[in-house]
Amino acid sequence: MNEYALRVIGRVESSLTDRASAPRQADEGAPDAWLVFDDPYGPALRGLSVGTDVLLLTWLDRADRDTLTVHPRGDVTRSRTGVFATRSPDRPNPIGLHEVHILAIDGTRVHVRNLEALDATPILDVKPLLTPDR
Amino acid sequence: MNEYALRVIGRVESSLTDRASAPRQADEGAPDAWLVFDDPYGPALRGLSVGTDVLLLTWLDRADRDTLTVHPRGDVTRSRTGVFATRSPDRPNPIGLHEVHILAIDGTRVHVRNLEALDATPILDVKPLLTPDR
Repeated sequence: MNEYALRVIGRVESSLTDRASAPRQADEGAPDAWLVFDDPYGPALRGLSVGTDVLLLTWLDRADRDTLTVHPRGDVTRSRTGVFATRSPDRPNPIGLHEVHILAIDGTRVHVRNLEALDATPILDVKPLLTPDR
Repeated sequence: MNEYALRVIGRVESSLTDRASAPRQADEGAPDAWLVFDDPYGPALRGLSVGTDVLLLTWLDRADRDTLTVHPRGDVTRSRTGVFATRSPDRPNPIGLHEVHILAIDGTRVHVRNLEALDATPILDVKPLLTPDR
């Protein structure tokens, strides 16, 4: 078996709508955004806390999946690098990984700070940060 | 569109074959392992360096995708928590996230330290760590 089907569990609600103008990293001016989970996944959110940081995994559905090498940050003066050594959204499996700070939780809606994902981006998963024993 | 197809780009080669005996975290005794990428993805590896740390994304193909709440670390004395607040492999999209140290690179085979993934686990992606400007 060489293909698996992802399930979209929710969507990003953001004022970012245009890839060309989106910041490349969250610390380059990304806006706050809402994570809107589909109702059946409400129980999976239990235990998330306002004021904590989590990892958000998204599916970068506007990425090019056939790109294997890029000029880092689109700078053609830099030599081509394999996409696995970069954070280009263009890659075989365009999974976005975002460290976000939870500002508020309202049912299955989670408000987060500085998210560099476009409006309507599919949500795949939320995980604790990579620290022990959680 | 609510489903997307992941592409398996390689597999883990590990001495870990049994989920019950696998360590829950890499720092709990996971063995070194090989990441064996399919040949077409060789160019995407260009720029990875021996001696650096990267994030490895895998598909935990033996996970239960219908689990939404768990007892943390399987301890039934702890109350049930939503899977998004835990690192349980059982979750709607069982994407494994592993910080690994590259020990060696041999063509499309990459040797890494302390990987808590079972033998034959599908590989989805490799990314730089979450630090700026890479």
